[in-house]
Amino acid sequence: MNAFSFVNPTRILFGEGMVDKLGEQVQAQGARTVLLVYGGGSIKKSGLYDRVLTQLEQAGARAVELPGVEPNPRVTTVRKGIELARAEGVDLILAVGGGSVLDAAKAVAVGVPYEGDVWDFMMRKAEIKSALPLGTVLTLSATGSEMNGNSVITNWEENLKKSFGSIHAYPKFSILDPTLTYSVPRDQTVNGIVDTMSHVFEQYFSPTQDTPLQERFCEGVLQTVIENGEKALAKPDDYTSRANLMLSSTFALNGGLISVGMQNDWATHMIEHEVSAIYDIAHAAGLAILFPNWMKYVYSERIDRFVQYAVRVWNVDPSGKSDEEVALAGIQATRDYFTRIGAPARLADLGIGEKDIDRMAKETVRFGPVGGFKQLNEEDVKAILRLSL
Amino acid sequence: MNAFSFVNPTRILFGEGMVDKLGEQVQAQGARTVLLVYGGGSIKKSGLYDRVLTQLEQAGARAVELPGVEPNPRVTTVRKGIELARAEGVDLILAVGGGSVLDAAKAVAVGVPYEGDVWDFMMRKAEIKSALPLGTVLTLSATGSEMNGNSVITNWEENLKKSFGSIHAYPKFSILDPTLTYSVPRDQTVNGIVDTMSHVFEQYFSPTQDTPLQERFCEGVLQTVIENGEKALAKPDDYTSRANLMLSSTFALNGGLISVGMQNDWATHMIEHEVSAIYDIAHAAGLAILFPNWMKYVYSERIDRFVQYAVRVWNVDPSGKSDEEVALAGIQATRDYFTRIGAPARLADLGIGEKDIDRMAKETVRFGPVGGFKQLNEEDVKAILRLSL
Repeated sequence: MNAFSFVNPTRILFGEGMVDKLGEQVQAQGARTVLLVYGGGSIKKSGLYDRVLTQLEQAGARAVELPGVEPNPRVTTVRKGIELARAEGVDLILAVGGGSVLDAAKAVAVGVPYEGDVWDFMMRKAEIKSALPLGTVLTLSATGSEMNGNSVITNWEENLKKSFGSIHAYPKFSILDPTLTYSVPRDQTVNGIVDTMSHVFEQYFSPTQDTPLQERFCEGVLQTVIENGEKALAKPDDYTSRANLMLSSTFALNGGLISVGMQNDWATHMIEHEVSAIYDIAHAAGLAILFPNWMKYVYSERIDRFVQYAVRVWNVDPSGKSDEEVALAGIQATRDYFTRIGAPARLADLGIGEKDIDRMAKETVRFGPVGGFKQLNEEDVKAILRLSL
Repeated sequence: MNAFSFVNPTRILFGEGMVDKLGEQVQAQGARTVLLVYGGGSIKKSGLYDRVLTQLEQAGARAVELPGVEPNPRVTTVRKGIELARAEGVDLILAVGGGSVLDAAKAVAVGVPYEGDVWDFMMRKAEIKSALPLGTVLTLSATGSEMNGNSVITNWEENLKKSFGSIHAYPKFSILDPTLTYSVPRDQTVNGIVDTMSHVFEQYFSPTQDTPLQERFCEGVLQTVIENGEKALAKPDDYTSRANLMLSSTFALNGGLISVGMQNDWATHMIEHEVSAIYDIAHAAGLAILFPNWMKYVYSERIDRFVQYAVRVWNVDPSGKSDEEVALAGIQATRDYFTRIGAPARLADLGIGEKDIDRMAKETVRFGPVGGFKQLNEEDVKAILRLSL
């Protein structure tokens, strides 16, 4: 186990009806003017928008709105939010939506007190030193953004999708009501499952030795998601499976809790960001395609971890099999599960071909080789992308 | 899964050499005068005391000392600390030691800004509304006090051992260096193992349904402690097993992280507090005796959970066995493990007989029946104590 420092200051309020605690939380932040950040308007159809406004009103807070946050949220939208927040004297950002809405809200929160352009943070040109307080109401189980300080933002002018992470960008509170995810469309539920599992993969496939507790935590998240994912798809309004998915996605990526002291990988996420920076596909669709191929490309680096994964997560029976056979069976089980729940398997399924591979590979390694499990250079990235065609 | 609210604001700094970060943390708190709380002086023998003073000096902070905190820390010592902190204008409490030292420090921290007597908090006569900031340097893997807001204090005048919990009593930071536990005596290492496992039992044996993620987390802690406990006993200066024990004990009881949304039990702790309020025995020695007997008394309330425990934690092979046989095999495995590592099995081993059973049972239920898994009244408590004689 490596040395580490860990803190996660976010309060989560979890369970049916927790939206009714929003007003209290807003009051506890002493907020007078709230920037309400949301997406395409599904929260208006569901009635959540009205419930949120009622809570703000009860808390004596005025609402200013930044609607229309896109999937793969854009820096142009973030800039608009920052201007609005400054002009209106906003003192709390409230994100109501899924990971994209939360990520955009985080970027607004860190951008408001910064005198330069917010994109500087994504390009590592400036350090985040403060932020407006942020609260969230989550409507989708996927990114873990509700309990971490990470954000991914797309810059279409430059075809770049970049992330930042900061202790200042952790939400002060996040409201997690599983019933809000009942109406999530099937493909987005699938994406959330893939996203959650991918977050665990980035942590679990680690070169760090002697971390049994963290490995059990990671395996626990994977087992729970695998089992409850299929249940939620079969019955979208099943509270138990929606709750288990929501809790799993929150724990899967909350400042590294389940992998404290472990070197993480994150190469696959970085490759995927370049795919979806060019093709406006869902992040998780890209991950579903790339991850099994990344696994095939790297598993021999540390076959024991892939054997453990196969046996503990997928119940592969190792008797009479070589380590390689067991490891590959675990990778195949991953691919089969993704396919079974309806996630894409090939870049071709999304209309992506050979032509942009060089450009995506080059951009992936813009800041140097990627990957903490196996370091990947430009040629490695090309090879994984080709395996995924 | 039940609805819940969760936050844990403590920062942990984990790993060999982390004591050298103490100065930075003290500075980050803006502390000028620090109350250094410690126990019987083992930190002077080990050199830790000097290292801590050096760090305080580098941080420009003055140290005032409260030495001599007892195992089962006393409210009289806490009161002395509160007076000293007030007289000297202390602005940070720093606990250096194990769970008892940390618990005493927490009681001092909440007692300083309170105008009444600190014992009011333990008797539920007053609510904790603020506290001095607290930092800790942990020297023993056991109580989880380093990352929660709980404290247990003994009042010998009244033969009472009572606890409090408050968000205000969470440490601001805790330094967890596994090498500081190398010199922990064998019996205290055993106590730490029992204590950690007992904390998980209080959460895992729950009436709450549909909590697979939390159950996997609990089982992961238990598996890790069971395996690494015996390794640490065999080789006290083995970094890996000491680190795994330290991380496990911290996660086992950190504000309910591994059992969010689950009804906890805590009856066995409450019974044990009354045993060690009369007989000054180690808390964990009492738990090692009581827990297997509590299990035998309650398992039929929810046999599926005890079957799962036997199979997943102790690898009991269920084939050809009834649920009852499997459950009892898991309970026996618990008893055997405690015995194997050298923990006591009977109250008689500690010189405790029949005579105080009535008094202990009566005091256990002072505030009403105890236990969230099975509610125990005075007669139930007597029965468990008799099973333990």
